[in-house]
Amino acid sequence: MVTYSLCLGRMIILKKFINNINDIVPEMLEGITLANPATLERIDGFNIIIRKNKKNNKVALISGGGSGHEPAHAGYVGEGMLDAAVCGEIFTSPTPDQVISAIHAVGTKQGTLLIIKNYTGDVMNFEMAMEMAQSEGYTCDYVIVNDDLALENSTFTTGKRGIAGTIFVHKIAGAKAETGASLAEVKRVAEKVIANLGSYGISADACTVPANGKKSFILADNEVEIGLGIHGEPGVAKTTIKPVDEFVTDLYQKIKDHLKLTANDHVGVMINGLGGTPLMELSIVARKTLKLLAADQVTCEKTFVGNYMTALEMPGFSISILKLDQELTELLKAKAVTPGMVVV
Amino acid sequence: MVTYSLCLGRMIILKKFINNINDIVPEMLEGITLANPATLERIDGFNIIIRKNKKNNKVALISGGGSGHEPAHAGYVGEGMLDAAVCGEIFTSPTPDQVISAIHAVGTKQGTLLIIKNYTGDVMNFEMAMEMAQSEGYTCDYVIVNDDLALENSTFTTGKRGIAGTIFVHKIAGAKAETGASLAEVKRVAEKVIANLGSYGISADACTVPANGKKSFILADNEVEIGLGIHGEPGVAKTTIKPVDEFVTDLYQKIKDHLKLTANDHVGVMINGLGGTPLMELSIVARKTLKLLAADQVTCEKTFVGNYMTALEMPGFSISILKLDQELTELLKAKAVTPGMVVV
Repeated sequence: MVTYSLCLGRMIILKKFINNINDIVPEMLEGITLANPATLERIDGFNIIIRKNKKNNKVALISGGGSGHEPAHAGYVGEGMLDAAVCGEIFTSPTPDQVISAIHAVGTKQGTLLIIKNYTGDVMNFEMAMEMAQSEGYTCDYVIVNDDLALENSTFTTGKRGIAGTIFVHKIAGAKAETGASLAEVKRVAEKVIANLGSYGISADACTVPANGKKSFILADNEVEIGLGIHGEPGVAKTTIKPVDEFVTDLYQKIKDHLKLTANDHVGVMINGLGGTPLMELSIVARKTLKLLAADQVTCEKTFVGNYMTALEMPGFSISILKLDQELTELLKAKAVTPGMVVV
Repeated sequence: MVTYSLCLGRMIILKKFINNINDIVPEMLEGITLANPATLERIDGFNIIIRKNKKNNKVALISGGGSGHEPAHAGYVGEGMLDAAVCGEIFTSPTPDQVISAIHAVGTKQGTLLIIKNYTGDVMNFEMAMEMAQSEGYTCDYVIVNDDLALENSTFTTGKRGIAGTIFVHKIAGAKAETGASLAEVKRVAEKVIANLGSYGISADACTVPANGKKSFILADNEVEIGLGIHGEPGVAKTTIKPVDEFVTDLYQKIKDHLKLTANDHVGVMINGLGGTPLMELSIVARKTLKLLAADQVTCEKTFVGNYMTALEMPGFSISILKLDQELTELLKAKAVTPGMVVV
């Protein structure tokens, strides 16, 4: 917790449990590795978390992005998911140097797949690193996740944004890689997930990026923002508050339309908290979402409820639905053991 | 999300993702069971979650208390932990009727152990239910968890309060029960955990209980409260904000003194978020705690970092340390699979 932070020439009080603004990301990553010494290690100086004792006879999976979305992405490094997470500063893309260091650290003869959320900076820096690695002889490919149905283009993207549904890509591509599948096969299932995935979020308030020292936007006491991004970037509309079941019904309908869900479909569901919403409220969101699916005779194979892709302490949630076939169902249910997600 | 709530004669805006204040707990529990249909079921009308397909040849474990602490306690029902959780209204003890219904639902010939957090209402109602069950022929016993080192007595308790360290009791007594141990043996390990456990918390702000409609207390922009309870009840002191490593050092020292930790001791650690603190900050707390243990040549066998015992959306954290012997270490690391904690 920093007593005062010099921000835009003003001294402001920053009420966060941190030490120094410049040390947040490395100290966080040091904490993650100290808490998981048997499974995770850190590449010091690069803000990269890698899987300890990683398998070398499999495709390597690397994801990452700005920090502030914990447990994404460092929390998904481990058995059945990622081999490395590359962590930028808060809400800031990692640099190409960081990404290539991760490829050097975990890349295998079978190749490396980069899982990139669709933000302009992330896409540019991951692609640049991939091309550098390819010129060094590494086999690399990538997928771009764009699951947020709220906007066709946004402040930080061309095309739809990548949000919480990205964790389904980590989980399913991770399970496929663990079987020893080829890079082309791992990329195929990752793209199948992306093609069958939709997410939609809502927020009741902003979060405070430490380096800015104040809330990223202001909502009135009776307002929420629909389609808000995981960095506090604008959504599609501000609206007055109403019972959450009505919001869930609206968001579900948008996802259902996008996925063309019909009776006898099978899905996986993630009710994701943005950081400041109690699990109590997320469970009430889960209740309505699962009731709507049941009413549509859609079978939910697996439900995740919790903080999976956060925006610091923002109060809000997103709903992600993944349409499953037999292959995706099996991979979704395959074993994964990471700090942020365990499936057994 | 309720648009307006009638509170103390005033209409106030309640910006929470709920439907109706009176439906929060049952809707939450319905959500939990719908999200975990293979492992959990609900006793409708009593706000009780029980383990599905529970083993009958083992001691039954029941815990509970007021709601608002999710995932505690319903999230700890499952393999290797609890057989039932009894859920009161928010920050309100469950009734004796509820507790006895849980004993009826999961009690076995081997007996039932009630794990009670030390709050006057909880202790009274669980004990009353136990006596009623005993008079019906059930074999029952109980333990009271009082891990909060902040206060000797508090607003709601005679003696120290029970807080996040309670989850270590669930975990270790649960693992012992799973081996088929007798009620006396399960109670013995639960009491060994309680005797070797210390917790200490800190908060940067209050939470809003929906039925009250406003924050339970006010802290200045530069203030935190040390030793604050999980219902927002007062702690030992308000103090000005400072770098989190200094707070962690203070709290660690208090727990270390209580447990008389010395070189070559072994411990388990829980860095618990109170609901509104990002995992980023909890990881920075974990970093300092684990560094202090290492500097004292204390071996940490297992670290949990996350929201385990919350106070709605309160921003804050607690540190719990459990001194381990060989028996407790093995039970702490034994398999558990519940929505709120997975150990594999």
